[in-house]
Parts: sequence; C-alpha cells; structure tokens
Amino acid sequence: MKIVKSIRDMQSYMFHLKKSGKSIGFVPTMGYLHEGHQQLMTKAREENDIVVTSIFVNPLQFGPNEDYERYPRDEVHDTNIAEKEQVDILFYPHVNEMYPKDQTIKMTVHQRVNVLCGQSRPGHFDGVVTILAKLFNIVYPDYVYFGMKDAQQVAVVDALVQDYNFPVQLRPIATVREQDGLAKSSRNVNLSNQERNEAPYIYQALLHGQELIREGEHDAQGIIQEVSHFIHTHTHGKIDYVDLLSYPDLERVNQLHEQVILAVAVYFKHARLIDNVVLDQDGSFATAIV
Amino acid sequence: MKIVKSIRDMQSYMFHLKKSGKSIGFVPTMGYLHEGHQQLMTKAREENDIVVTSIFVNPLQFGPNEDYERYPRDEVHDTNIAEKEQVDILFYPHVNEMYPKDQTIKMTVHQRVNVLCGQSRPGHFDGVVTILAKLFNIVYPDYVYFGMKDAQQVAVVDALVQDYNFPVQLRPIATVREQDGLAKSSRNVNLSNQERNEAPYIYQALLHGQELIREGEHDAQGIIQEVSHFIHTHTHGKIDYVDLLSYPDLERVNQLHEQVILAVAVYFKHARLIDNVVLDQDGSFATAIV
Repeated sequence: MKIVKSIRDMQSYMFHLKKSGKSIGFVPTMGYLHEGHQQLMTKAREENDIVVTSIFVNPLQFGPNEDYERYPRDEVHDTNIAEKEQVDILFYPHVNEMYPKDQTIKMTVHQRVNVLCGQSRPGHFDGVVTILAKLFNIVYPDYVYFGMKDAQQVAVVDALVQDYNFPVQLRPIATVREQDGLAKSSRNVNLSNQERNEAPYIYQALLHGQELIREGEHDAQGIIQEVSHFIHTHTHGKIDYVDLLSYPDLERVNQLHEQVILAVAVYFKHARLIDNVVLDQDGSFATAIV
Repeated sequence: MKIVKSIRDMQSYMFHLKKSGKSIGFVPTMGYLHEGHQQLMTKAREENDIVVTSIFVNPLQFGPNEDYERYPRDEVHDTNIAEKEQVDILFYPHVNEMYPKDQTIKMTVHQRVNVLCGQSRPGHFDGVVTILAKLFNIVYPDYVYFGMKDAQQVAVVDALVQDYNFPVQLRPIATVREQDGLAKSSRNVNLSNQERNEAPYIYQALLHGQELIREGEHDAQGIIQEVSHFIHTHTHGKIDYVDLLSYPDLERVNQLHEQVILAVAVYFKHARLIDNVVLDQDGSFATAIV
C-alpha cells in the first residue's frame, strides 16, 4: 500500500493511473477505521481496479461546540486496517496541506440539511462538501463509497455531484446490521445490557413503518406517530426524532407519492443511535437510491 | 469542429481524449466572440493538442439589474469564429442543461471581490466560480485561458483553483492593445473622435504610475493620486476608480512590498473603459502573475 501525504504527488500519481484506464474506487474517511469503513473498502475492492482511501479529520465539518481537537486519531491502527482491506493508496494529508489558508470561496448547502441530524449541526455539511470537492479533484475517483447509515450525508453528496457535475458515481452501501437487526455502530458498546436488548426494536420500528406503507397507509404523520409509539412501547430510549421525508431531496411529505426515507434517532443513557430505511412509494426497499 | 450540447456526451468524449494523453486547452466564454477571445484561442491552440471553447451565457453571474435576457447572442457568427481559430470542440449547452434546477449547494466568494469592478456587481463572481467549477468538471482542461484585461476575474479564478485543488493550470493572457496603447475593447467603438484621442492616456497614466514605482515611490495613496491626476489632466473622462492593490489577493496596501495591480476604470460619454498593469515591487511588469 502506497501512503501519500502531498496533494501534488497524489494528483500526479492518480492522473497516471486514470490515464492507464484503471477504474478508481474511493472511500473518504476521518480515520479511526471500523467495520463500517471496512465494508465500504470491501465493496470498493470488489468493484474497482484501484482502491483509494483518504484519512483526514476535516476541521471545517466540526461546529464550535464539537471537539475537533479531541476527535480520535490512530495512524498505526488505521494503516493496518487499510492494508488488510487491500487498499492500494492511502491519502493521508496534514491539515495545512488541505487548508493552507482560509477558503476564499465557500460552499454552503441550502437544502437537505435542516432536517434529521443536520438540524443540530449547522454548517456541518458545508464542511463535508468542501472537503469532498477538494478530494474529488485530488483523487479522480470513478466511484465514491458512503454508508447509508448516514443517509443524509449521501443525499448531500448526491447534491454536490449533481450541482457541480463531478464525474464520479455515488455508491451508497446498505447499513450493516447485527443478527438481531441492530445497525452496527461503534456506539453500541456504550449500551447497558438492558439497552442492548431494547435497541433492536429501533429497526423493528422502521420495519413496522414499512409494513404500514405496504398496507396502503399514505399519511406521513400517521406513520411517524405509529413508529414513535412502537419505540416508546418497546424501549426506554428517548426519541430525538422520527421523520419521514422525500429522498434524496429530504423535503416534508404529507402523502407518500415518491421515494422516501423513514429515519430515527434515539438517545439511550450513553449512546445516541440512528437508523433509517429508504422505501419506494409502495413500501418496498428502494433499489436505486440516488 | 465538433459541437457538443450535452454534458454527458461532453464528459465521455473529453474523458476519452484525456486518457489518450492529449493536453487540453480551454477557453470559456459567453459567446459574441471578439478579438479578445480569439487571442485566447490562438494561445490555447499554440500550447495544446486539443482546444475546447464553451459558449454559455451564465444567468448566475448577472445581477437583478443586469440584463441577462438581452445579452447579445449570435450562434452563426460564434461558430464561424471558433472554426476559424481551429477550435476542436465547441461546448454549447442550453441553460436547462447546465442548471436543470436551482443549485442546492452555493459557492460564494469572500475575498478579492469587494474592490475594483466587483464592488458594483455583488454576487457576480459567485456566478462566475459556480459555472467554472461545473465546466472544469465537464471539460477536464489542463490549461484554462483568461485575459488579463479582467484581472479581477483572473484573481478570483486563481482562488477557485487553489481552494478546490482543481487539476488545471490558469493561463492569464496579456491585454491586447492598439498601436497607441489603448486596450482593445468592443466598447472602443462607442467613443467619440475626441474621446478616442484621449483614451490612450489611460494606459499612459498606468505607465506613469509604473514609472513612479520604479523611481522608488512606495506610498500607494501617492501613486493613486498621481495616476488620477494624470487622467484628469489628459482626458475628459470621469474616473470610476483608480486603485493599487496586492495581486492576486486584491487587498489594500499602504507600502508596496509585493506584487501589485494598478487598475483604473474611466467613464466616457457612451463607454466605460478599464485597464490595468500588474507589477513587481520594483515596478517591472510581473511575469509570474498567479
């Protein structure tokens, strides 16, 4: 595995690979790699000649009350994981390499952001699209991989690619689940035993919502209430949100006539868990997500 | 000459050329091509295997009081000019192709804009960088050509390329002048005979400013006053601005210790003329402009 730290080296190396006609799969990360990232790398490995991963803790996507400095970093661990996943090139730039000075030109996301988790993180996605625009111009990927666990991020990256015609195809990868349906997350270890037993009901609640749609329920508020009630009944978690929005536009819907996302966030004592399903209007799992 | 109207066709064709290792020179325009554009095409032709020109009247760079609808368009004339200049590919998209809907993600320029001509055109350069980001992702140019007549535009495009790591090299091309030094412009035909005789003093005023710097004058305000006085003395034009700023940062300078731009805009009765020189701190013409 080749480790590259400079933008100039990366661009010249990637240009060389691109010219040779090899397909390039890209997994951008902030490091501290876990099973979710590995899933993306596995998929990228299956689908491409060359797999590139970037590790960069992007200060622009942290809010003033979010602790950029304390975000966990582990170069040795991450390098080992990437090596194990047969990543060909690891782009690992220093913050001064990516942001030698403040951006003169800023990107701001005006839709798809003031809902779901984005509500409580103003400016977060501005930072995400800024770093991705830069990375796309450095890595020249054919395919870029993101997990559907963060479905809002996928929607925002879709807007970036569409709005600015980046010649890259977005590959959203299905959320990986435990056998009991709980979405895998590094935060699951912070659940108590009882909470861990209750947590699978979050996904059960989403499937309950799906079932309602399948049965012909088209009223968004009705479905949201049923799903919320299901979570209340089966867990001690505190609901942050349950929402049903068009996808990937993430706009409020009253009646279901398009692809939608049913998404939830639930606080347990030491962990906030999120999950979602993207559904066609008949309630079946969506296949062409973006 | 190949004329391409769709983004998808353009990307697949350009990708094919890029892979073959050919260098791509790009001249983005809003059409109604004149000698200034031709100069850029000639330069692009000299320096590249493939020359691409785009013609697109970009609504985003027009202010609410600027007449997007009435901007002149002449497809036959433009196609002939491009053909004559041995352009290989003319990208000529419809507005709905470039902006099928409002941008979800907006680009805004926060520096280099509230001075010179940018002062009176709020939002103009936001539109310029948005369309260029899109065009760079469609054309994949190695070199992009702009005239130094609009030096502020060059400075803003430089910020775009730097901030977002676009793999393209900016080639600023020197202003073309009449024998008497007047910068060529389609607006020169709107000058009366007397005004046409006076207009060369605009460039003379810039050279006078250059002379002052060469002689050791380092006080920006003093130079600005001298240049303004020179224009007042030799013409009946009304000065819009005379300014001396760092280049390409376009920040105010008191004492000259870096590359600067000396720029002027002068109103005559039916024409507003602009001109500039970019100078090293010793007063010589700058060679490495960006």
